[in-house]
Amino acid sequence: MTYNVQPRETLSSTISPEGSLEVLSQHEVHRLQRTSKSGQHELLRCCALAVLNCGSPTDDSLAILEAYKDFDIEVLQQDRGIRLKLTNAPAEAFVDGRMIRGIREHLSSVIRDIVYIYNEIQHHNRFDLSTAEGTTNAVFHILRKAGTLKPGRDPSLVVCWGGHSISREEYEYTKDVGYHLGLRDLDICTGCGPGAMKGPMKGANVAHAKQRRHEGRYLGISEPGIIAAEAPNPIVNELVVMPDIEKRLEAFVRLGHGIIVFPGGVGTAEEILYLLGILLHPSNQDMPFPLILTGPADSAAYFEKIDEFLVYTLGEDVRRFYTIITGDPVTVARQMRQSVDEITEFRRTHQDAFYYNWRLTIARDFQAPFEATHEAMRALALHRQQPTHELAANLRRAFSGIVSGNVKEQGIRAIEAHGPFVLNAEPELMQRLDMLLSSFVDQGRMKLDGQAYTPCYVLT
Amino acid sequence: MTYNVQPRETLSSTISPEGSLEVLSQHEVHRLQRTSKSGQHELLRCCALAVLNCGSPTDDSLAILEAYKDFDIEVLQQDRGIRLKLTNAPAEAFVDGRMIRGIREHLSSVIRDIVYIYNEIQHHNRFDLSTAEGTTNAVFHILRKAGTLKPGRDPSLVVCWGGHSISREEYEYTKDVGYHLGLRDLDICTGCGPGAMKGPMKGANVAHAKQRRHEGRYLGISEPGIIAAEAPNPIVNELVVMPDIEKRLEAFVRLGHGIIVFPGGVGTAEEILYLLGILLHPSNQDMPFPLILTGPADSAAYFEKIDEFLVYTLGEDVRRFYTIITGDPVTVARQMRQSVDEITEFRRTHQDAFYYNWRLTIARDFQAPFEATHEAMRALALHRQQPTHELAANLRRAFSGIVSGNVKEQGIRAIEAHGPFVLNAEPELMQRLDMLLSSFVDQGRMKLDGQAYTPCYVLT
Amino acid sequence: MTYNVQPRETLSSTISPEGSLEVLSQHEVHRLQRTSKSGQHELLRCCALAVLNCGSPTDDSLAILEAYKDFDIEVLQQDRGIRLKLTNAPAEAFVDGRMIRGIREHLSSVIRDIVYIYNEIQHHNRFDLSTAEGTTNAVFHILRKAGTLKPGRDPSLVVCWGGHSISREEYEYTKDVGYHLGLRDLDICTGCGPGAMKGPMKGANVAHAKQRRHEGRYLGISEPGIIAAEAPNPIVNELVVMPDIEKRLEAFVRLGHGIIVFPGGVGTAEEILYLLGILLHPSNQDMPFPLILTGPADSAAYFEKIDEFLVYTLGEDVRRFYTIITGDPVTVARQMRQSVDEITEFRRTHQDAFYYNWRLTIARDFQAPFEATHEAMRALALHRQQPTHELAANLRRAFSGIVSGNVKEQGIRAIEAHGPFVLNAEPELMQRLDMLLSSFVDQGRMKLDGQAYTPCYVLT
Amino acid sequence: MTYNVQPRETLSSTISPEGSLEVLSQHEVHRLQRTSKSGQHELLRCCALAVLNCGSPTDDSLAILEAYKDFDIEVLQQDRGIRLKLTNAPAEAFVDGRMIRGIREHLSSVIRDIVYIYNEIQHHNRFDLSTAEGTTNAVFHILRKAGTLKPGRDPSLVVCWGGHSISREEYEYTKDVGYHLGLRDLDICTGCGPGAMKGPMKGANVAHAKQRRHEGRYLGISEPGIIAAEAPNPIVNELVVMPDIEKRLEAFVRLGHGIIVFPGGVGTAEEILYLLGILLHPSNQDMPFPLILTGPADSAAYFEKIDEFLVYTLGEDVRRFYTIITGDPVTVARQMRQSVDEITEFRRTHQDAFYYNWRLTIARDFQAPFEATHEAMRALALHRQQPTHELAANLRRAFSGIVSGNVKEQGIRAIEAHGPFVLNAEPELMQRLDMLLSSFVDQGRMKLDGQAYTPCYVLT
Repeated sequence: MTYNVQPRETLSSTISPEGSLEVLSQHEVHRLQRTSKSGQHELLRCCALAVLNCGSPTDDSLAILEAYKDFDIEVLQQDRGIRLKLTNAPAEAFVDGRMIRGIREHLSSVIRDIVYIYNEIQHHNRFDLSTAEGTTNAVFHILRKAGTLKPGRDPSLVVCWGGHSISREEYEYTKDVGYHLGLRDLDICTGCGPGAMKGPMKGANVAHAKQRRHEGRYLGISEPGIIAAEAPNPIVNELVVMPDIEKRLEAFVRLGHGIIVFPGGVGTAEEILYLLGILLHPSNQDMPFPLILTGPADSAAYFEKIDEFLVYTLGEDVRRFYTIITGDPVTVARQMRQSVDEITEFRRTHQDAFYYNWRLTIARDFQAPFEATHEAMRALALHRQQPTHELAANLRRAFSGIVSGNVKEQGIRAIEAHGPFVLNAEPELMQRLDMLLSSFVDQGRMKLDGQAYTPCYVLT
Repeated sequence: MTYNVQPRETLSSTISPEGSLEVLSQHEVHRLQRTSKSGQHELLRCCALAVLNCGSPTDDSLAILEAYKDFDIEVLQQDRGIRLKLTNAPAEAFVDGRMIRGIREHLSSVIRDIVYIYNEIQHHNRFDLSTAEGTTNAVFHILRKAGTLKPGRDPSLVVCWGGHSISREEYEYTKDVGYHLGLRDLDICTGCGPGAMKGPMKGANVAHAKQRRHEGRYLGISEPGIIAAEAPNPIVNELVVMPDIEKRLEAFVRLGHGIIVFPGGVGTAEEILYLLGILLHPSNQDMPFPLILTGPADSAAYFEKIDEFLVYTLGEDVRRFYTIITGDPVTVARQMRQSVDEITEFRRTHQDAFYYNWRLTIARDFQAPFEATHEAMRALALHRQQPTHELAANLRRAFSGIVSGNVKEQGIRAIEAHGPFVLNAEPELMQRLDMLLSSFVDQGRMKLDGQAYTPCYVLT
Repeated sequence: MTYNVQPRETLSSTISPEGSLEVLSQHEVHRLQRTSKSGQHELLRCCALAVLNCGSPTDDSLAILEAYKDFDIEVLQQDRGIRLKLTNAPAEAFVDGRMIRGIREHLSSVIRDIVYIYNEIQHHNRFDLSTAEGTTNAVFHILRKAGTLKPGRDPSLVVCWGGHSISREEYEYTKDVGYHLGLRDLDICTGCGPGAMKGPMKGANVAHAKQRRHEGRYLGISEPGIIAAEAPNPIVNELVVMPDIEKRLEAFVRLGHGIIVFPGGVGTAEEILYLLGILLHPSNQDMPFPLILTGPADSAAYFEKIDEFLVYTLGEDVRRFYTIITGDPVTVARQMRQSVDEITEFRRTHQDAFYYNWRLTIARDFQAPFEATHEAMRALALHRQQPTHELAANLRRAFSGIVSGNVKEQGIRAIEAHGPFVLNAEPELMQRLDMLLSSFVDQGRMKLDGQAYTPCYVLT
Repeated sequence: MTYNVQPRETLSSTISPEGSLEVLSQHEVHRLQRTSKSGQHELLRCCALAVLNCGSPTDDSLAILEAYKDFDIEVLQQDRGIRLKLTNAPAEAFVDGRMIRGIREHLSSVIRDIVYIYNEIQHHNRFDLSTAEGTTNAVFHILRKAGTLKPGRDPSLVVCWGGHSISREEYEYTKDVGYHLGLRDLDICTGCGPGAMKGPMKGANVAHAKQRRHEGRYLGISEPGIIAAEAPNPIVNELVVMPDIEKRLEAFVRLGHGIIVFPGGVGTAEEILYLLGILLHPSNQDMPFPLILTGPADSAAYFEKIDEFLVYTLGEDVRRFYTIITGDPVTVARQMRQSVDEITEFRRTHQDAFYYNWRLTIARDFQAPFEATHEAMRALALHRQQPTHELAANLRRAFSGIVSGNVKEQGIRAIEAHGPFVLNAEPELMQRLDMLLSSFVDQGRMKLDGQAYTPCYVLT
């Protein structure tokens, strides 16, 4: 397959990263350089490109990499710290030749996380990632390094999930919800990218301006595989790049004080399955965790289908973990505010940290990275003859694999080489899964570009 | 005439004003109280109501006062300063019972200006308002008291004029222009209110978030007569209430480093005439003063009409003072940024203050308050047998009177009592004036509510 | 008399004033210029010289003016605000050619107050200074303009009075008291100058560093007549120049939440008489007002004499207004902290402002400026056949006159011309007054230079 | 030997650490607890006690530990972060029951460093401490973690070395030098503790107040072995606890932009030998490194002796590395300012970091920790038949051992058990060493308490 890539406008410049990147040691700088064998340079190049390319309306990682083949980034040590030399960078990151400051900050965050994750998590094996405890600890340390754990603040972080490819009406709705959350001094955390991940931040930004909430948080949590497809909007004022989707999901649920799910596609389904699979764990029985599914009035049918699928797969009991509200942003915001106040009270009573939910139990099933190979996808046990939370875990993996096939570089390359993933499910489940996925396709929730979607999976 | 006023939701509360209001003396507090004979209480009540009513989609001052007849505000002296006791205040100023902080700040600004203007400008006659010098000095002192003169800052303030009643497309365009101005570190100053006065601020707010310009300025300059009709949006983070429209206009041109005019109605026409009348003054020949007329591509015809009218009335030469750009927000912003840089250079060369354009000559004609009575309107000399800048001054007054008849309490009451204003113009001028005003009516630029507009004037 | 003035090292430079001076209007700048007839230029020159001369160990205003005869200051309007052109300024205000920033701030304060007092208080007669109400209001407005009224802060301001010419031991003691006040989050207000007016600030500065109290206040309240003799130390981070000693004293008692008196000379005696005269007023009966007289253990005898004199002149009852503590800085500080907490409670209960003691009644006797002419001094009624508070007022005037004859330009010139002031007192009072004044002379509390002191008064 | 320990006043309280301690993970908290076997609890207890005991005039670590035998500290995890429960803490850390905020910050720093050093440096062996590169990198990481590497700042950090037991005159001199450094916007770094390590900070604090340098740095670098003897004064606003004296010395020379040495004892001699040993290294030939030896005029003889000893041991050439100035604080400060400006230029030219002197070569001899056992001390090669820098290294170790025997817990215990250390030197060197050490003893520079000093060493 060949990409019909348009030549893009580019620009070369040397800039200072701004924000959370502290000074680097000489070794850390060396390892980021093209000549180093650490592999960090290529990772940096990809993530930096993603961040710089934030204005572009595509979610195809590979296409972006192709379009900016000759883009490069070099880290220089200078008297006042680090400077970045960019060659053939996307022109839209600049205004009249000066890089947008929010993007300069994102570059800083990307370097910080690449350096830290490589040195502390991957290279030195300081954390035993084969255990739940070690993994949770690693997630904690990455987030702490990124400065996202703010001990002085009251709980206020609302995670917003939902599709990047949504209708105009849905997008306006997510802005509205963000606006009403912001008026109530709540902050927004999303997975970066367009659509439901951008709307709530834009809405909250206006509300925070009205409330003079200068320290409002717009936290974006990404991962190297997805960042190109879901580039952080420059409004994001805290960006964290987690090593993989599993740690990214864990970051969401340990940081967030409540979660709102807007309409979305397989990624959103993955997130819902992940969260419910965890909440269903017996140890989490008494853990308050606000979860609201919401969209404009027209999306009532959409949520009915989701609800149906969840009840079928996870049982009637699952309903007590979420509330569905449609067409009413004020009620969503008011209810979330109240729930966050309850969380605050709960944490205070139990002397739990406000900034990291240590108490939440996450089974290994939900932590172990799932690599979406054809083999692994085919092997997934998709039937109801297993404990509910195991089925949730497997469904989560299935959805995760489809996301990969849709937008991640690795996934796209695998599909190109070997054809669509094959998923085996028991008949009724397969049927329901098919219906759900087909509805995502029909509603254009799979991919951004709006062209006919060729599924990257086959259900058998 | 009776108003069919809907009962509105109200709320009573005691709040702390926030922001620029410093401590008040006991005398200053007394004079604001209902029992004082200073007249300040009623002024405070009206302005406070306007500020609290910011969410309401009407521009009819009288209707608002009727709708909240039993609203009251009381100033209390307390240990930590002033508190405000509000009775039956518009509920929309509050979120879950707590007043929006931006609105608390606006209340603070309103009190500050009422107290200062009364004590320093009106009561003590410290400034000789019958002279150009005294008037300009009074405007300076009001603005200084309000904290709008910021000596440390580089020039960055772009005044945006335009209608409050504009189309969705035009509104989106004003946001777009504001966005691109904001990306270039420019700040916004408008006359408060909806439409073209809100759009640029909203756009700039997003851009400033991306540029991390935390100290972005959204300056609103209002006057007691108009504030109810054009309530400041809570995004406005500096609000000044000038005593009358003439001082308000002077504030715009002495503070602003450049002016952008969007499509609008008579108020906008008043502003254009005011500015061009001043720029035509011989003393201002070499004064750089960027002025851009702009709108979406569809509004090209609108600006052609304006251009035609200006050339007819003020002569061909007037064209050198403005540029018309349609459908291109980036060019507008880029050109404005460049012009502001030139202004900076000019001021530096001449050792002029960045924060107040002392050098601009404003003839008395443009400073003396014009009270729009039937008599005064009828007496306006609207013909071309007078120097250009005098005709500009008279046309400015004519438009000003129509604005008053449309939306100001006093004007509306005068029209109710005596019928429409009568304007006498020489035939061709009358015809052209008629065409221009009719086009404003046709395009729905006269009033917000969208009902059929009954003109408050007759051309004879 | 000729002054044997050493030529001093000087320096010419153009600097930016820093701090509380806002932008000036063109008129305000003009009035400060040498060519203006407002008289403000000479006042500015003197005060500026005083501020620049802060390191010099003399308290003789006249000698300073002589020593820097050719010093001049010019106010320039520039793009970013005001600049000051200094000619032949004292070199000690600079470090390697750069002016100490604290001094830059003091210049800014001096200009601010001269401009404001001239325009608002003296020239425009906005306040009726012949009434108690008008005077108190004027004091309020000067202080508000200077930014000393801080509504958000809890009461914390301790006024320290005492001599500028004190022993090393006494000086160390004042530092110690300041240190222990500072450890308790209390701030310091003095009359500027060396000795007891500098020590507490230096002590508090160290304590505030240990407590990380970055917003610690070191408020100096001066007047044009005395500022040269008691130049503000650059540690002073808020400087106010009141128009005369009476308004300065009123500023102290309306701002301060408690007062500590260290050993001193006639100026200190003036302050004590002033305060007790006010506290004895029937309207102030129930007003809490902490007053502690304190010094090192060795100064016990000193305070006994003061105490005796006070009891003789004002009656036994006067003792309930003050506490004498010697040799115990910790107790002084602890007691003051506790008293300030009680003041806080009192003000809260009565809804009184924290930042200005409106409730305190100050009789006209204590407000009307007393000009120390030979005639006026001779006419003072110094006998016990008058109400206590009147005697206090007259004694205060007598001490005030002696201070003037000692260190103020005007007073020194009068003594040079007409010989010492003559004071008439009834015999026993005269004897006691003589003893008190003699003890000041003996203890070297009258003047700084340490040479033999020639009294500027005769008692008859 | 028994200690005659006075019972001290103590206090129990739960406080919040303030400042640079970020949130801790559950594991990090566990390892600090008494029940953990990590050994961190005892280390924390000792360092915390040292920090709390800052007001106490003793330098005997052991005596302090004895005096507060029942002191304990416990780390609690709470909703807003960590809280510290203190039992029987020295009362002087509190003012009226509230802990001094500077001390709260020091507790925070102590915990931060203990946790980091244990986890990153000691436990995980992430750095290869047997190599120069690994050691330098470890020092970098500890300092970065502590926030002392500030990329945005111009070079300004002057390291001040000198004795903790010095005369009043010398102490005043160190304050004076600090004052004049502070006036020139220079910051102070010392080893914590009293005397020459406190004076410059106090002086600079006053100067910074006058210059409104609110972000003035008072950096204290300590180590667990010495912190009790040289407790950080609460003025220190950045405290770092390095693992051992060698890394502490490396921190000084990599952070500092210039070094001033005041009179002192063996510790000071150790520091001088350390620095000169490094500067003599061939790779450091062209490295600018300002070093000024200074004291009051009376200390001229002292510096002559030092100078003589240095020339004898290290050769005539050593003189080009330092300047001796006596009795002239202004010249010291002015010269240092100029040198720091040259350093700035040098680093800029070479693109070297401002905040960490990577370019300086430090031989392994000066990095490898030296444990002062009787055996190690006896084995030191103290003769001139070795390269200069090796002799410098061995002399440095000899002095280091004597410091340990004087004030460090471990050293004191060793001397108690086995008698004085025995040092072998070649005859003339021995004689000169003896003279130098004896002069320290005679001048009371060995120990604080002022009692007769019993040498912890024998020269043979």
